[in-house]
Amino acid sequence: MQYPNGKKSSSLTKRAHLNQTDYSNRGMSLEDDINDTNTYYMAHNLAIIHKKPTPVQIVHVDYPKRSAAVIKEAYFKQASTTDYNGVYKGNYIDFEAKETKSKHSFPFRNIHQHQIDHMKQVIFQKGICFLIIRFSMYQETYLFPADKLFYYWDQQIRNGKKSIRYETVKKQGYIIPVRYQAKVDYLTVIEQCYMENGGTTNGR
Amino acid sequence: MQYPNGKKSSSLTKRAHLNQTDYSNRGMSLEDDINDTNTYYMAHNLAIIHKKPTPVQIVHVDYPKRSAAVIKEAYFKQASTTDYNGVYKGNYIDFEAKETKSKHSFPFRNIHQHQIDHMKQVIFQKGICFLIIRFSMYQETYLFPADKLFYYWDQQIRNGKKSIRYETVKKQGYIIPVRYQAKVDYLTVIEQCYMENGGTTNGR
Repeated sequence: MQYPNGKKSSSLTKRAHLNQTDYSNRGMSLEDDINDTNTYYMAHNLAIIHKKPTPVQIVHVDYPKRSAAVIKEAYFKQASTTDYNGVYKGNYIDFEAKETKSKHSFPFRNIHQHQIDHMKQVIFQKGICFLIIRFSMYQETYLFPADKLFYYWDQQIRNGKKSIRYETVKKQGYIIPVRYQAKVDYLTVIEQCYMENGGTTNGR
Repeated sequence: MQYPNGKKSSSLTKRAHLNQTDYSNRGMSLEDDINDTNTYYMAHNLAIIHKKPTPVQIVHVDYPKRSAAVIKEAYFKQASTTDYNGVYKGNYIDFEAKETKSKHSFPFRNIHQHQIDHMKQVIFQKGICFLIIRFSMYQETYLFPADKLFYYWDQQIRNGKKSIRYETVKKQGYIIPVRYQAKVDYLTVIEQCYMENGGTTNGR
C-alpha cells in the first residue's frame, strides 16, 4: 500500500462520469454484466456468487452529531484474492474477470502475482477457479481455467511473454454464452467442464 | 454495521487505542484469533478462508500528484453477506463470528436479516455454513450450524425471544478446540460434523 503526499485533487464523481461515457460507447462493462448475472443466479437459487468489496485502509473517521460516521481519510489496498467467489451445488467457485481491447492477445497487466498465488491455493483445495476474459473488440467472453493460466503465467520467466494469444484463449478456453438474463452465463460452462458424471466434480 | 448518531467526533486511531486496551484486559479478540487461525491454515495448505473487506461507499477521492489516491469522503455500508468465506477440500465454507460478554445467552443483536437470508441461500446451495460464537466470560468458542440458528431466529416471530440460551449453544453447538497455532481450530469441528464417510459431505 502506498501513502500519498501529493498536491492536486480531483473528484471521483468526475472520473465516474468519464467512465460512464466510455461504457455508453462500448456497451456494458464486463463487471456490470457479471453482477447482473450473479443477481439473476441468486434470484433463481442457481448459485450464490458475490463480488468482494474493494479493500480500503481506513485511517481517520469522523463521528458527527446525529448522522452517519464519515470516513475522512482512507487508501486503496491491493486485493489479496480474486474479485468473485461463492458456492454452486456445494462447490467453491472463485474467479477474476478481465476485459481487453486487444484483438490479438490477453495481457497479464492487471493480474498480480499474489492473485495467481491465491488461485493456486484454491486449486490445491479443489475449488473451481478460472478467469473470465472478454475480448471487447469481438464481444466474446471466455472462461479460461486457472490451471491453464498458470502454465502461461509461469512461462513468462522463461520466454518473457506477458500475454496469452487470442487464438490460445479461443482454443483452450470455453466461450461463455450470452443470454438475455444471464449476460455472462458462466454456470453453463462450469456445468459442462467441472460437473460431468451427474454432479460429481471432475477435471479439478 | 450501524450508522451512529452520537455526539462527539473522535478519530479511529483513538478508538483503535481504546479497543487495544480492551483486548489486553480480556485477551485477543475473536476476530484476531480467527485471522491468525486462517493465516495458519493457509500457510499449511489446510484451507483458504479470508475475511471480506469492510464494504465502503466511496464518494470523493483525491488524486494528488506523484502519490497514491486518497479517499476523502466515504461511508460504511451494511454487509450483504457474512464476514468469512473460502474453500476446504473443494467445499464452500461460509461463516459469521460473534463474541458476547453475556453468561446466559447469545443475543441476536448484530445479526441482520439479510445475513440470515444469505446463510439460507448458502445452505440451499449445499455450502457449509455456521456461526462461530464466543462466550468471552467462559473463554469458550462454539461452532453453531446455520440450520440450527435458523430455527431460533425464525422462532423470534412467535415467541419474541431475541437470543439463544448458553445451554442450548453448548448442547446443540460444537466446542472449538484451542490450539497453539490454530487458536480457533474450527476445521477440526468441520471435519467431524460435515466430512464423515471419508470426505463425502454429510449433514448438509
